[in-house]
Amino acid sequence: MIVYERPIRFDEVDPAGIVFFARFMNYAHEAMENFFSDIEGGYAGLIQTRKIGFPTVRLEADFNIPLRYGEMLRVETSCSRLGNSSATFVHDMRSAASGEICAVVSHVVVTVTLGVLKPCPMPDDVRAKFAAHMTAR
Amino acid sequence: MIVYERPIRFDEVDPAGIVFFARFMNYAHEAMENFFSDIEGGYAGLIQTRKIGFPTVRLEADFNIPLRYGEMLRVETSCSRLGNSSATFVHDMRSAASGEICAVVSHVVVTVTLGVLKPCPMPDDVRAKFAAHMTAR
Amino acid sequence: MIVYERPIRFDEVDPAGIVFFARFMNYAHEAMENFFSDIEGGYAGLIQTRKIGFPTVRLEADFNIPLRYGEMLRVETSCSRLGNSSATFVHDMRSAASGEICAVVSHVVVTVTLGVLKPCPMPDDVRAKFAAHMTAR
Amino acid sequence: MIVYERPIRFDEVDPAGIVFFARFMNYAHEAMENFFSDIEGGYAGLIQTRKIGFPTVRLEADFNIPLRYGEMLRVETSCSRLGNSSATFVHDMRSAASGEICAVVSHVVVTVTLGVLKPCPMPDDVRAKFAAHMTAR
Repeated sequence: MIVYERPIRFDEVDPAGIVFFARFMNYAHEAMENFFSDIEGGYAGLIQTRKIGFPTVRLEADFNIPLRYGEMLRVETSCSRLGNSSATFVHDMRSAASGEICAVVSHVVVTVTLGVLKPCPMPDDVRAKFAAHMTAR
Repeated sequence: MIVYERPIRFDEVDPAGIVFFARFMNYAHEAMENFFSDIEGGYAGLIQTRKIGFPTVRLEADFNIPLRYGEMLRVETSCSRLGNSSATFVHDMRSAASGEICAVVSHVVVTVTLGVLKPCPMPDDVRAKFAAHMTAR
Repeated sequence: MIVYERPIRFDEVDPAGIVFFARFMNYAHEAMENFFSDIEGGYAGLIQTRKIGFPTVRLEADFNIPLRYGEMLRVETSCSRLGNSSATFVHDMRSAASGEICAVVSHVVVTVTLGVLKPCPMPDDVRAKFAAHMTAR
Repeated sequence: MIVYERPIRFDEVDPAGIVFFARFMNYAHEAMENFFSDIEGGYAGLIQTRKIGFPTVRLEADFNIPLRYGEMLRVETSCSRLGNSSATFVHDMRSAASGEICAVVSHVVVTVTLGVLKPCPMPDDVRAKFAAHMTAR
């Protein structure tokens, strides 16, 4: 599990004073970028230099309690399934202060060659990263 | 089924030239706002005057083919399940030109009293709207 | 002057119930895309087929009265200065219902060749479009 | 001057691979939130507990060189003018690695009582914060 924390920003909160539900999917991507941060060149290096991308093909999310402006977001990221070219991310999204789970987002990504957007084998360093952070779910 | 169309905007497209996956959840909410547009006062009236909201508690999405800048988005919105205070939206998101399904987003919303964010019975006009647009899925 | 109207969306409104100030810059770009909509291929065609872009190099905005959720945005777009490769857009952003000006955004764009992002001469059809919608400001 | 750094995120970059110009206004607000972070309760405390807000009434931005995905944003925030209820923020936005200025955003904010959105005197701790970070511009 890789942990990522950052404050909720003003422009992420809706008129009801809580994080807008779609925003949790942006958080999921942000946590994925963070997950890959110690791969050589980071996620930016993967897509810009190695021309490899990880588009999401399936997504599930459960929303338990609202996350409010002024709170610190804490995302705990693991992998629940690892295939030849695909992997499933699971992100537990918590209020850092209370530790309560606000939302759980899981999404299946497929390794693709950018440009043509065709599936390709997952690079070894990416696979090793997933393998080091498997979860039983 | 209620149909909602609008062009893909430049700021909705990622560096790979396709709509960023999280954005489809914003489209889902936008289609929901459109779904309620002929309720008295629209969705804005529901939340601002009647103080009723419809937070999403569960979400599923499948992404089939990319949607690109320059295309027209077409969202077909139905209801697949109608409970006492909850309902499930299904949004088929197509490229208007080709008719191909790019993504399907379904999400369960719960009727709540805003402020306290507690579940409450669904108003009759909202229920009638859902009932008029049921789908078998 | 070219007129562009659309409803304010829920996810564009901040916790104070008004459109977040940065969002007006997205509206400016959206109005620019609309301004170019009857150029062959639209703005998408300009950037994707002709590989020409119009990055903003300078921006000014004045915010007069808030725009609220439930209102219809009306943008009136003109050109206040036309150079060899640059042009200045002026967008009067009104509440469509009241006609009141909520914000005025002006921005200078430069015609560039995409990829290298270097200035290039403005194409004749783009220049003609600007020339047809000059304003004295 | 208060310094704020964070990575550019994937969803902030446009199809040309550079940060979309409107996004710099979100960065300006984010830097403002960071500027107020050691005021009691932070910016969230100001708006939620003390019911004081700082809407932007005027904005200017110059864009010099593009900021790209994979770069670290560095914002240096100062105050160039301090009035009774208003203040002018200046944000120098740099690529952290090269130190080059990518954009300069300045904006005038007015202290208001939230709800009514009417100007009110600037609280002493807010004024002291601005006064400690004046710039000659």
